[in-house]
Amino acid sequence: MKKDDFRGEETFKLPKGYECSGFAAGIKPSGKKDLALLYSEYPANVAGTFTSNLCAAAPVRLCRQNLGSGVPGRAIVVNSGVANAATGERGWQDACAIAEEVSCQLAVDPAEIYVCSTGSIGKYLPMERIVDGIGSLVRNKGNEGDAASEAILTTDKHPKRWTVERKIDGRTVTVSGIAKGAGMIEQDMATMLAFILTDADCDRGALQKLLSDSVANTFNRITVDGDTSTNDSVLLMANGLAGNERLSTGHSEWDCFADAVYEVSSRLAWMIVADGEGATKVVTVQVSGAKSSKDAERAVRAIANSLLVKTAWAGDKPGYGRIIDALGYSGAEIDPEKIDIHFDGLSAISNGLRSGVEEDKLRQCVSRGNFQVNIDLHLGARSASVYTCNITEDYVRINYV
Amino acid sequence: MKKDDFRGEETFKLPKGYECSGFAAGIKPSGKKDLALLYSEYPANVAGTFTSNLCAAAPVRLCRQNLGSGVPGRAIVVNSGVANAATGERGWQDACAIAEEVSCQLAVDPAEIYVCSTGSIGKYLPMERIVDGIGSLVRNKGNEGDAASEAILTTDKHPKRWTVERKIDGRTVTVSGIAKGAGMIEQDMATMLAFILTDADCDRGALQKLLSDSVANTFNRITVDGDTSTNDSVLLMANGLAGNERLSTGHSEWDCFADAVYEVSSRLAWMIVADGEGATKVVTVQVSGAKSSKDAERAVRAIANSLLVKTAWAGDKPGYGRIIDALGYSGAEIDPEKIDIHFDGLSAISNGLRSGVEEDKLRQCVSRGNFQVNIDLHLGARSASVYTCNITEDYVRINYV
Repeated sequence: MKKDDFRGEETFKLPKGYECSGFAAGIKPSGKKDLALLYSEYPANVAGTFTSNLCAAAPVRLCRQNLGSGVPGRAIVVNSGVANAATGERGWQDACAIAEEVSCQLAVDPAEIYVCSTGSIGKYLPMERIVDGIGSLVRNKGNEGDAASEAILTTDKHPKRWTVERKIDGRTVTVSGIAKGAGMIEQDMATMLAFILTDADCDRGALQKLLSDSVANTFNRITVDGDTSTNDSVLLMANGLAGNERLSTGHSEWDCFADAVYEVSSRLAWMIVADGEGATKVVTVQVSGAKSSKDAERAVRAIANSLLVKTAWAGDKPGYGRIIDALGYSGAEIDPEKIDIHFDGLSAISNGLRSGVEEDKLRQCVSRGNFQVNIDLHLGARSASVYTCNITEDYVRINYV
Repeated sequence: MKKDDFRGEETFKLPKGYECSGFAAGIKPSGKKDLALLYSEYPANVAGTFTSNLCAAAPVRLCRQNLGSGVPGRAIVVNSGVANAATGERGWQDACAIAEEVSCQLAVDPAEIYVCSTGSIGKYLPMERIVDGIGSLVRNKGNEGDAASEAILTTDKHPKRWTVERKIDGRTVTVSGIAKGAGMIEQDMATMLAFILTDADCDRGALQKLLSDSVANTFNRITVDGDTSTNDSVLLMANGLAGNERLSTGHSEWDCFADAVYEVSSRLAWMIVADGEGATKVVTVQVSGAKSSKDAERAVRAIANSLLVKTAWAGDKPGYGRIIDALGYSGAEIDPEKIDIHFDGLSAISNGLRSGVEEDKLRQCVSRGNFQVNIDLHLGARSASVYTCNITEDYVRINYV
C-alpha cells in the first residue's frame, strides 16, 4: 500500500435511511465548514468508544451518558474549531443545549442526540452561531456525506471516508465511516473522531462489543505523537433498514458484518496516520515473540512513540540502534542477545547484533512512503502491531505556528 | 537563571590527587578528541549509577561488575564516538581489553578501571586506535580536566564542568564534575555520562547512597526527548586526599559534603538540558498537590515529555490546554475541575478553567530562555519537578541528518 492508497473518496456512499449535512457556522476563523449532522430516519442502535483521558471534554461525558441510557440514537452533531474541553459547568450546559436544540428541530428526544466537538481546548463554544447553524444543518440534510466529512476536519489535509458493502441474508448491508485525525495546528487541539453508519439490523450489545474490538485493533493501534486527546470518540449507528435478520454474534453471517466494520475502521485509521501532521511515511511496527501480550504492547508502543526512532525515519535512516534502545526502556521483558529486526523482510539486527545486510539497502527500504518493521523478541508467542508515522520538521512547525 | 547561566567553565579545577587527559584517537570521523582518562593517584572509593535500559552496553555491565566487587577504583577511561552497545560478546571482550590495557599501563588491577563509552549503537570499537590512544592518555595525564571534559562529548555544543569547594573538618574538600549530554546527531547515539571526582575521604556505602540520592534528584530529573539510552552512567570517586575525618552519614558535616555533591550534579544536569539538541529554552515543570509521589511523578513526566507541549513552547505558546491533556492521560489521579496552572507565577488555568490573565502576558513569559510551570492538582501533599526543554525544528533536523 502506498501512503495515500487509502484515500478512497470515490467509493463513499451513505447507507439506507441516513441523511447528512455540513455547514460553515463561523466557529472556525477560516470560514471553512465546521458543523456536521449525521441523521438516521429511524431509531438506530448506537455503540461508542471514547478517550481514556481523565480530562474528557463535556461532549464526551454527554455521549457516555446517552450511551449508558440504552435509548436508540437518531443523530450525531459535530462541531470543529472548539473542543469544549476544560470548560467546566458552562461547557456541560453548552453540550446539553446543543442536544436540546437538535432534538427540538428533529422532533426527537435529547437523549437520542450525540454531541461531539473537536478543536481548541480551554475555549467556550460560540453558542449563538452554533444554534443558528443547527437550523441550516437540519434544513439541508440529505445525501451530503461529503459535506459532513469535511465539516468535522480541523487541520487534516484530506477528508477521510470509506464504504464497504456486504451481502447478509441476501440483503445488501452498507457500512460507511468518516473520520478526522491527528491534526493540531492551532493551540491545543483535541483530536480524533470517527463516525460509522450502517443500515444493518444489529443487536445493541453485539454492536458495542464489535465496535470495542474493532477500535482496539484499528483506532487504538495508530500513533502520531503519543498524546491522547480529551475528545477522542468513535460512534457506530445501526438503523436496521437493510432488512437483514437481526445480527448478533450467533448469526451465521456475523463475521461478514464484523469484517465490514473492521475494514471501515481500519481504512479510516490508516488515513489518519497517513494524514498525520507533517508525516511523509506510514510505518507498520510489529513486535512478535513476546512473552506476554502486555510485553508485546509495551515494546511496540515504545518504538512507535520514540521521537528518536521517528526522526531517524524522517532522515531515511533505519534507526535500528534507537529501536534496540527503545526496547530496552520499554518495560517489556527482553533478552538483548535474542533480538531480531527486519525492515520489509531485510535483516538489520540478528541475535542482537548488526547483520550483514548493507546499510544502503536498509536506507532504500525506509526511504519509501511506507514500510514495515518486524521485531522478534524470541521469548514467547505474543505479538502486537501499530501503525505509526515519521516525525519531520513540519510536525514541529505545524505545532508551534 | 538564564539558559546558559550554568556554563561555569572558569570555576573548574581538579581535586587533590587526580590527573586527567583527553586525546583524539581517531574514533570520531571529525578528528575531535574522543578518549579521556580520569586518574586517581591513590585508590578511591567509587559509587555509580547506571541506565535502567535492559540493553545496557558492555561497558555499563563491566562498570557494574567492578562496582559490585567493592574494590577501590583508580581510573575511569571514556571513549566517545562509538557506544559499544548491541555488540554482544565481542563488545564485552573489547571493554575488558580496554580495562586490561589501562591497568597494565597504570600498573594497577583491571578491576580498578572503570570503562565508559558513548556514541553510535551497533558498531564495534576501533580497538587498535583505542589501544594506541591509551598510551598517549597515560603519558599525558596531568591537570587536563578541560581536555577530558571535551573528549567525552558527542554532539554537545559546550563542555560541561563544575567545581564546588567546602570546608570540612577545617580542610578544603573539592568536588568537581564533568558531563556530556543529550546529543544524538549521528545515527543512534547513546547518551548521558557524568563523572564526579572528590578528594574527600568518604565511606563507600555512604558515598553510594549519596550518589544515588543526588542522581535521583538531578540527572534523573531532566528530560530532553524521553528516550533513555543504553549507556547512561554516573560515577563518583572519592580518594580521601583532602585529609578530612572519614565522612559517613553520622558525620557532623555530612550535609555540607552532600550539598556539594548535589550542587555539582544539579549544575551539570542543568547544563545537559540547556545544551539539549535544538533546545532554546530550559523549563522547570513542577507538579504539587498530588495524592501520591507516584502520581506527582507520572503527571510531571507526562507534561515534560509531551511533544505537543514542548513544540508549543518552541512557538512561544504557553500550551496550557496541552498540559491539561497530558495530565488527563498521565495515569495520575486528577480532578479536572481542581487543576491550577501558573507560568512564572501568572495564573493560566484556575480550577480547570482559563483564568483572566491575558494570553499576551503568558506568551511573554514562555518566550524567555527559561521559565517555570507550576501545576497544582489540589488532591494531596506530594510534589515532583523536572527540568525539560522545548522541541524545535532543529531537534528533528539534528536527529535525521
